Amino acid sequence: MQAVAPPIDVLSAKKLTDEYIYEFCHQRSAEALEIGSSYARLWHTIEQLLLAGGKRFRPYMVLATYQAYLPNASLNDVLPAAVAQELVHLAMLIHDDIIDRDTIRYGVNNIAGQYDAFYAPVVSDHEERAHLSLSTALLAGDALLADAHMVLRRTNRPAELVNQAEAMLNQSIFEGIGGELLDSESSIAALPSTSAEIIARYKTASYSFIGPLATGAMLAQAPEADINTLQELGSILGIGYQLRDDILGSFGDSEATGKSSSSDIIDGKRTFLIEQFDQLATSEQKDTFYASFNTTDVTSNQLKTAKQTLVESGALQAVELKIDSYYMKATALIQALSLNEESKTMYEMLVQHCLRRES
Amino acid sequence: MQAVAPPIDVLSAKKLTDEYIYEFCHQRSAEALEIGSSYARLWHTIEQLLLAGGKRFRPYMVLATYQAYLPNASLNDVLPAAVAQELVHLAMLIHDDIIDRDTIRYGVNNIAGQYDAFYAPVVSDHEERAHLSLSTALLAGDALLADAHMVLRRTNRPAELVNQAEAMLNQSIFEGIGGELLDSESSIAALPSTSAEIIARYKTASYSFIGPLATGAMLAQAPEADINTLQELGSILGIGYQLRDDILGSFGDSEATGKSSSSDIIDGKRTFLIEQFDQLATSEQKDTFYASFNTTDVTSNQLKTAKQTLVESGALQAVELKIDSYYMKATALIQALSLNEESKTMYEMLVQHCLRRES
Repeated sequence: MQAVAPPIDVLSAKKLTDEYIYEFCHQRSAEALEIGSSYARLWHTIEQLLLAGGKRFRPYMVLATYQAYLPNASLNDVLPAAVAQELVHLAMLIHDDIIDRDTIRYGVNNIAGQYDAFYAPVVSDHEERAHLSLSTALLAGDALLADAHMVLRRTNRPAELVNQAEAMLNQSIFEGIGGELLDSESSIAALPSTSAEIIARYKTASYSFIGPLATGAMLAQAPEADINTLQELGSILGIGYQLRDDILGSFGDSEATGKSSSSDIIDGKRTFLIEQFDQLATSEQKDTFYASFNTTDVTSNQLKTAKQTLVESGALQAVELKIDSYYMKATALIQALSLNEESKTMYEMLVQHCLRRES
Repeated sequence: MQAVAPPIDVLSAKKLTDEYIYEFCHQRSAEALEIGSSYARLWHTIEQLLLAGGKRFRPYMVLATYQAYLPNASLNDVLPAAVAQELVHLAMLIHDDIIDRDTIRYGVNNIAGQYDAFYAPVVSDHEERAHLSLSTALLAGDALLADAHMVLRRTNRPAELVNQAEAMLNQSIFEGIGGELLDSESSIAALPSTSAEIIARYKTASYSFIGPLATGAMLAQAPEADINTLQELGSILGIGYQLRDDILGSFGDSEATGKSSSSDIIDGKRTFLIEQFDQLATSEQKDTFYASFNTTDVTSNQLKTAKQTLVESGALQAVELKIDSYYMKATALIQALSLNEESKTMYEMLVQHCLRRES
């Protein structure tokens, strides 16, 4: 009897993914050099950013799901499909940073940030340089978005399954772009608002959870019912992850999360938490809260009071209850999967991580 | 004996392509509406732009080449691969307009231009609105770039050939992005310059000529030697097209070209024509010419004199000679193809159009 490999863990998935990304970027750098040294520099910059951070949860979900349905199969066969999810994610991150005008990612300069420094000695005009840097970042995102398809095609599974996985990748991108647009336009107060849950479903859940889980299952030829169940689970994980993010954004321990626990309020981010507050708060609580919302002109005491109104209004509890209901749904979905207990535990830990995490 | 269909012409290719694009955008709009009405609006805006102009030369080259090798086959089988070339082109155009800060395309507002008008009543700050409009255009380009792969996969040919065509599409995008970067960085005088021919090879020839010709041939299972020859031909057509563009940019009849015959000089565009001028001109001619180059502070008489120096220096003739040499190479390549005379004539007309056109 063939020994079954132990289930892959998050760190091993990261190692496999990072090795693949490293090789891939090196190959692209060499090919880019044939075109011009500045194109090779772009690929080198992409590589530096890619390897600067990221937990590789998306590849992990592909690999772990594939293994759950085919415990004896080689993970290397589907590693390209796992890496493709990460490339889409990174392409979207790079373009998201352009939209959000951010220059830092994973604690280092992002593509635009790196190029702003590189162009500094040769382009003195600050605005011109910012535009050139953003243009280069735009191209970097395009390159990764296009290559995600190419990398996925290297998957060593029957053509029909790879086609299915590519269609899924494309669906994730299509939905992700829609979510990004809804999010970007939600900053315009005068346009009809979209609920934070809908934005999370498309911007976060699609390519970060639904796509990876479905891809792993499809490539393993899991039963159709399981593929559908995993997509539902992915939707819950993505939205739940975002709701937890909203809570941590105002009530998290900033030492643990690495993010300020006031910036959501200061930046005026219209999260699910704020939506609940709008429904539940008294007009007095609203007056108190909105004096500190979307303004930098606020003291730490005022922020403390604002957060207190989020608690007193019942908004925080409403979000926790919503997360609890997602938690129960997720648990029921996992029980419905045609998998052994060990695999189900793996998904339960994933739910735990997304919905109950403190950082 | 089965009657052979007459060779497809440019207008018929445009009709087929436009019908496909219309259906495709309608389908995407409907799917986008499930996500949110603003996403449906984006697809509607994309459709309007896509159908506002474009000669669909790229799809034509795919279809005509496929037909040259398989005269009895149905063009509908490979129409998706033809349309995919156009979607890549349109994605690159949309992102190129962001990089060039243009808001007009095909004589109408481009995506950013349309959205700037749409956001005007709800976002009064001009800079903020410009950023939001560019962000939306960025997402539109991403959507088309990703969907090019998906549309190509609908090609009704053996899987191995479709895989080859997809790899070719990806190569075109990879090279096109490199060309775009070289072009964008060529505006920075202090960086090492890249020759205009190299930029044309990657920015123009790759996805506009090499990709479409090779794709049509691959899908028809043309002999390997022919596929290589067509790629060489595509390279010549693309570079030659750009060299002719450079000449028309300063010596064209603006009524025929629809473009100013002074903007290349006023904008300081470093074309192949200017490169030749730099090599051939006397220092006196350079003083005269560069007084009018890259400046709006110039009279029409000065522009006339500047153009005269391009002629007198021998630069114009040098470009014409270069085009002639490409013309001869192209003719020899066409003769080497394993095709009948009618098909060779089709390619000769293509060469004629790209290298000898007056508009």
